Amino acid sequence: MRPRHVVVRDIRRTTADLLDALAASGVAATHEAQGRAGLLATDIRPIQTDAVVAGSAVTVLSHPGDNLMVHAAVEVCRPGDVLVVALTAPSTDGMIGDLLATSLRAHGVVGIVTEAGIRDTTTLRAMDFPVWARAVSAQGTVKATPGSVNVPVVCAGQLIEPGDAVVADADGVVRVPRLAVAEVVDAVRERLASEERKRAQLAAGTLGVDMYGLRPLLADLGVVYVDVDADR
Amino acid sequence: MRPRHVVVRDIRRTTADLLDALAASGVAATHEAQGRAGLLATDIRPIQTDAVVAGSAVTVLSHPGDNLMVHAAVEVCRPGDVLVVALTAPSTDGMIGDLLATSLRAHGVVGIVTEAGIRDTTTLRAMDFPVWARAVSAQGTVKATPGSVNVPVVCAGQLIEPGDAVVADADGVVRVPRLAVAEVVDAVRERLASEERKRAQLAAGTLGVDMYGLRPLLADLGVVYVDVDADR
Amino acid sequence: MRPRHVVVRDIRRTTADLLDALAASGVAATHEAQGRAGLLATDIRPIQTDAVVAGSAVTVLSHPGDNLMVHAAVEVCRPGDVLVVALTAPSTDGMIGDLLATSLRAHGVVGIVTEAGIRDTTTLRAMDFPVWARAVSAQGTVKATPGSVNVPVVCAGQLIEPGDAVVADADGVVRVPRLAVAEVVDAVRERLASEERKRAQLAAGTLGVDMYGLRPLLADLGVVYVDVDADR
Amino acid sequence: MRPRHVVVRDIRRTTADLLDALAASGVAATHEAQGRAGLLATDIRPIQTDAVVAGSAVTVLSHPGDNLMVHAAVEVCRPGDVLVVALTAPSTDGMIGDLLATSLRAHGVVGIVTEAGIRDTTTLRAMDFPVWARAVSAQGTVKATPGSVNVPVVCAGQLIEPGDAVVADADGVVRVPRLAVAEVVDAVRERLASEERKRAQLAAGTLGVDMYGLRPLLADLGVVYVDVDADR
Amino acid sequence: MRPRHVVVRDIRRTTADLLDALAASGVAATHEAQGRAGLLATDIRPIQTDAVVAGSAVTVLSHPGDNLMVHAAVEVCRPGDVLVVALTAPSTDGMIGDLLATSLRAHGVVGIVTEAGIRDTTTLRAMDFPVWARAVSAQGTVKATPGSVNVPVVCAGQLIEPGDAVVADADGVVRVPRLAVAEVVDAVRERLASEERKRAQLAAGTLGVDMYGLRPLLADLGVVYVDVDADR
Amino acid sequence: MRPRHVVVRDIRRTTADLLDALAASGVAATHEAQGRAGLLATDIRPIQTDAVVAGSAVTVLSHPGDNLMVHAAVEVCRPGDVLVVALTAPSTDGMIGDLLATSLRAHGVVGIVTEAGIRDTTTLRAMDFPVWARAVSAQGTVKATPGSVNVPVVCAGQLIEPGDAVVADADGVVRVPRLAVAEVVDAVRERLASEERKRAQLAAGTLGVDMYGLRPLLADLGVVYVDVDADR
Repeated sequence: MRPRHVVVRDIRRTTADLLDALAASGVAATHEAQGRAGLLATDIRPIQTDAVVAGSAVTVLSHPGDNLMVHAAVEVCRPGDVLVVALTAPSTDGMIGDLLATSLRAHGVVGIVTEAGIRDTTTLRAMDFPVWARAVSAQGTVKATPGSVNVPVVCAGQLIEPGDAVVADADGVVRVPRLAVAEVVDAVRERLASEERKRAQLAAGTLGVDMYGLRPLLADLGVVYVDVDADR
Repeated sequence: MRPRHVVVRDIRRTTADLLDALAASGVAATHEAQGRAGLLATDIRPIQTDAVVAGSAVTVLSHPGDNLMVHAAVEVCRPGDVLVVALTAPSTDGMIGDLLATSLRAHGVVGIVTEAGIRDTTTLRAMDFPVWARAVSAQGTVKATPGSVNVPVVCAGQLIEPGDAVVADADGVVRVPRLAVAEVVDAVRERLASEERKRAQLAAGTLGVDMYGLRPLLADLGVVYVDVDADR
Repeated sequence: MRPRHVVVRDIRRTTADLLDALAASGVAATHEAQGRAGLLATDIRPIQTDAVVAGSAVTVLSHPGDNLMVHAAVEVCRPGDVLVVALTAPSTDGMIGDLLATSLRAHGVVGIVTEAGIRDTTTLRAMDFPVWARAVSAQGTVKATPGSVNVPVVCAGQLIEPGDAVVADADGVVRVPRLAVAEVVDAVRERLASEERKRAQLAAGTLGVDMYGLRPLLADLGVVYVDVDADR
Repeated sequence: MRPRHVVVRDIRRTTADLLDALAASGVAATHEAQGRAGLLATDIRPIQTDAVVAGSAVTVLSHPGDNLMVHAAVEVCRPGDVLVVALTAPSTDGMIGDLLATSLRAHGVVGIVTEAGIRDTTTLRAMDFPVWARAVSAQGTVKATPGSVNVPVVCAGQLIEPGDAVVADADGVVRVPRLAVAEVVDAVRERLASEERKRAQLAAGTLGVDMYGLRPLLADLGVVYVDVDADR
Repeated sequence: MRPRHVVVRDIRRTTADLLDALAASGVAATHEAQGRAGLLATDIRPIQTDAVVAGSAVTVLSHPGDNLMVHAAVEVCRPGDVLVVALTAPSTDGMIGDLLATSLRAHGVVGIVTEAGIRDTTTLRAMDFPVWARAVSAQGTVKATPGSVNVPVVCAGQLIEPGDAVVADADGVVRVPRLAVAEVVDAVRERLASEERKRAQLAAGTLGVDMYGLRPLLADLGVVYVDVDADR
Repeated sequence: MRPRHVVVRDIRRTTADLLDALAASGVAATHEAQGRAGLLATDIRPIQTDAVVAGSAVTVLSHPGDNLMVHAAVEVCRPGDVLVVALTAPSTDGMIGDLLATSLRAHGVVGIVTEAGIRDTTTLRAMDFPVWARAVSAQGTVKATPGSVNVPVVCAGQLIEPGDAVVADADGVVRVPRLAVAEVVDAVRERLASEERKRAQLAAGTLGVDMYGLRPLLADLGVVYVDVDADR
C-alpha cells in the first residue's frame, strides 16, 4: 500500500504536441470528443478572460486552509504542467497567492486548477498567470498539515491522475486520461473539421433541422407545426 | 387544446421603434417604468461586459440537456428577435454553442436569454453575440426530445409570451408584455427625463433627502439625528 | 440607550495617510497583517475589474428593498468615506443606482460595500465608481422604512463600526477597526517588504520548502518522497 | 386593463371530487400524468412529514417582507382552498405565522404554498396545518405595501392561475390548470392502475428491463454486458 | 488591548428567570419584541424537531476544522449556558460530536449553536441534546490551532457577546443583548398576551383586515376589489 | 480499453461480516478510522431519520434525467448491495421512485445513494427503504440514454469502485475501498473502544483539555487565560 502521505517525484506526462492540440481545440470540443466525460463542476471559474491552457496534471491533495503540500509540489513540477489542487474537505480559503504563483511559474507551471479559493487575483492577472478556482478569497492559509503530491485525486467531481491532460478555458476545465489523449486528439480534430464545414453552412442560412436531418425526428416525436397558436 | 408539442410559425412581434426605445432605456429603468414587474431571476447573468439588447421573444420550451427544439426554433426567428430558452427541469448544461449562435445570427437573432447553461463563450464574445445564461458549461446536449417553440414559457421565474419585448443588459433581463410596450416606453421616457434633471441636482450636491422631500418622513418614522453616538 | 433609529452626524475617522497605506497594501496583505480577521463573506464581489479603495466607513442599517436611509446617509459623508450598507433581513434588490452614486460622489464617497444588490452597473463602471455587492439586480427600492446611519452594523458576516477602515479590491473586502489601523499598517508594511524579498527568491527558482525551512516539518508529519508511485 | 392592484373576489374553482382524486394520487403521479409539467422548484419544501393536500389556488402577489395582501386574501378564501403566495422580489422573510394560519383555517384553507419563508413552525405542526415554503425564518413582516389577490402569478417558477388545482406532498408541489384537471385525473388513475400491476411484478422479482422490454434498446444503444471488467 | 488568543473565565450571564421567559416565548416573538434585530442567518437549522432552548452564550472563535478551543471552552461553561461556535473562515466540517456533547452536558450546557457543521447526529438526538448548525458532516477536526473563548464573535451574521441570551427553536436562533433582556422579556410578554386575544378573534372568523383596521390603508394604496377578473 | 457503455455482471464484494461491523460503527467513526477520506459531499442527505446501512456498491453511471441504466443495474444486484447512482452532468430530477425501489428490494438491495434526486419519498419511508440523495423531486425520467453499471464512478465528489463498502447514516455517506475494509474495521473497533472509555470520563466531568493533555499546547500557542475581559 502507498504510504499515507506521499510526494511522488516522477510521473509520466502527456507529450507537448498532444497538449498543444488540446489547447487549440478548447474545453467544449475536447469534452465532446471524449464522449462527454471528464468535465469539472461548473462552479470552477477562471479569474481571467478568455485564457486557455493545456498541461500535464501535477496533483495535490491538501488539507483545507493549508498550503504546505502546494509548496511541496513545486519541486516536482516541470515546464508545461498544470497544478491541480484538491481538498480533503470543502473550503473557499485563498490557498494560493502571487508568491506561490511566482514560484510555480519559475518552475514552468502554466496554470492552476483548484476546488479551493485563490487570492492576489489582480497581481495574477497582471502576471498573465491563469487560474481556475471555486472562489476568490483573501483568506490565507497555514503550512501545517500533511497531504500528498501526485496521487490520484477527485477535484470538483472528477478523478484526475498525475500526468493526465487538463484543459481549461473560459468554458471550464476538462480532464483527459493520459492514455486516452492521443485518441481524443484524433477525435477532436475530426470533430473540429466537421464543425468548420457546418459553421459555414449555418452562417449561409442553412437550417440545423435540415443540415442534421431532424425533420423526420420532429415529426416522429409528435411535434406539430402551426401557423398561429390556436390557444391564444 | 394546443397539441402537446408545437412549433408556432407566426407570432405578433413588438415593433422595432419600441424595441429601440427600450434598449436605449435599459433594464433598470424599464423595470421601474412598468411597476417593477417582469424581472428575471438575478442569477441569469451576461457572459459579456455592458452589452444591451431589446428584441421580440421567440420562446423555446426544452427538455434539459437537449437542444433539438432550439434548432427547430431557428426557422421561425426573424431579424431583431431574442431567443428565450426555458427548461422543463433544472439543468446547467451548455445548450447553445457557437454553431447554433452562428445559425441564429444568420437568421437575425440579436441575443439569447436562457435559464440553462451556455458554452463556447470565448467565441461568442469574439462574435459580439450577447448571451444571458444561468451558467457557463462545456457540457453539450443531445437532439432527441420534443418540446415547443413560441408557446408561453416561464423562464427564470417570469412568464414570457412569444412576441413580448425582452430587454437585457448588465443589470439583468426584463420582460415587457407585447401589448404593454407602448405604454411602458412612454413611462420610461418620462422617468428618464426626470432622472436627468435629478442627476444634475445631485451632482451639484443637492441632498436626496431635500430633493425628494424626505425629512418630514424621517421625522415621522422616528429617525433621530444626533451629533455623536451616546452609546459609544 | 441609543434611540431605535438614529443618524449620527459626527464620527471619528481613519486618517487619510493610513487609508492610503492600506489601499497600497491591498486586501489580502491587510487581512493577513491583522491576524486574518475582518474579511467579509466571499460572495461580496466587485462589479468592476481590479479597482482598489480604502476609506472610513459610514455605516447604514437598512430595511431590505428600501433605500431611505442611504439617502439620509449622504449628508454625513465626507471625502474619502466608503459607504457600508447592511440589511436587517436578506435581500438582493438593487438598493443603489447611478443617481445615488452621483449624489454620494458629489459628497466625496469613494466606494460602496453592501450585502444587498446594486443596479445601473454599466453607468457605475463608466463613472469609475467602485462597488462591492452581493448581487446585481435591476430591482429598485422604496423610500419608506426607518433605519440608522453610523451605528455598528454586521455586514456580510463582519462587525463594522463607523469610522473603521474598509479596504476593498479584487480579492474582496476587509475591515480594520479604527483604533487598530496604525498598528496594522506597520505590520502590513513589514509583511510586504518581507514578501518582496521572498518574491525575488522564488522568481529565481528557490523552493518554498527550502526558503521557509519546511523539509523537517514534512518529515515529521510523515510525508514520504518516492520516485514512482508503487500503487500504480 | 386590470387595475394595478386588485383583489378578485369570485374565482372559478376546481371541484372537490377532482381535488380528492388528485390528493389520492400525489404529486409525482399527477406531474407525470400531465406530461411532466407544472412542478414548482424543488427548494420549496414541506415543514411537516408526509402530509398531502390538493386545493383550489387562491393566489397572492405580495411585496417581499410584507403580508398585507395575505390578510386581504383571507376574505376571499373558501373551504378547500390552498393559499399560494408569490413575491415581486426574492425574500426568505417569514411572511406567515400561526395567527394568519389560524385565520386562514377559520376560513377553510387547507394549506399554504409560498416562495417566501414561514415562521411559528412548531405551532403550525401542532395545528396540523401543512405548509410548503422556501425557508423557515422568524423574520416577521410589515403590512404596508399593495399587491394583488387572485391574479395569475409565477410562484417558484410555475405560472399559477386562481382556481387552478395545486397538489402538494412530501415530493413537492405541482399545479394543474383548472380546465385540465378532469383530463389529468383520468390519466393519473390509468397510470396508477398500471403502476399497481407493475409493482406486483417487480415485487415478485421480474426485472424492469424485461417488463418494459428494454433489452433491445440497450443493445441498440451499444451497451455491452461483460462478466468481469477487463480494465481492472 | 486584549491578547490575541484568550480564554475569559468569568462572564456576566443572563439570569435564569429571564432565560425561562424567553424560552417560553420562542424565537419569532422574541425577535419581534426586540425590534426585529438579532436573527441569525436562516441556514442555521436544528438537527432535531421542535426543541427550544434559551441560555447565556459562551462564545468560541475557532479556526475552521479545529475544535481545540471548543475543548478549552468546556471548563468555563456553567449550567444553563448555550455554546456558540463561530469560525474565522467558512467550513462545514463536523466540529462537535457526541463526545464533546457528553462533556458539554456534564458541565451543564443546554444546547449548541454553530456556523460550522455537526456530526454524530443520531446519538445527539438520542441524548436529547439540541443543536443548531449550518451543516451535518461526518468530517472530524484536529486540535491544533489557537482561538478564543468568551470574546465577542459574529456567528451566522450576528454579533454575539459572552453572556448574551441566545434563544433557539424550530424557527431559528436569535440573540438578545444581555443588558436588553429584561426589557425584551417585558415587551414579548405584552406581545404574546395581545397575540392570544387576536388568535381567539381570528379563530372565530374575524378578518385581519378588520381586526387590524387595514381597509382604509388598502383603499389608500389603490387596491381595488372586483367581483370577477375583467382580464380573463 | 473497456467498451464505452458496459454492464459488468460479476464484481468482487465486501463480505457481510465486515459490512455489519461498518454499519455498527457508523459513518463518522468509519471516516475517522480510514484517515478522514472518502466522505461524500454533505449535500447528499437522507430522506429518513436515523437509518444506517452498509453494503457493497453496485455503481451506475447515468445520463441526467434518464433511469435506463438503473433498470439495467437491478439484474446484477445481490442481497446486501447498496446502489450508487452517479450522473454525467448535474441534475436534481427524481431518478428513482417506489417502483424501482420495489424492484431493487426484491433483488436484495438495502439502500440507495445518489447525486441525483429521489421521488415517492412518503412511500419509500413507509417501505423502510433508506435513500441518500441530493434533492427530493417529483420530476420523473425517461429510459433512453446509455450508460454503465459497475464501472468506477465519481459520486458527490468521491471515487467509488464496484464492490467498495458504502456506509450511510444520519451523518452522511462514506466509501471504504474494498481492499481496505478489513484494516478500517480493525481501526474503527479500536477507535470505538477508546471513545467508549473517553465518553465515560467526559460524562463524569473530566475536561477534554486534561484528558487529551491539551493544556501545554494551548500555552505554546499563546492562548492566555484571564478572569475577566479587560477590553469590555
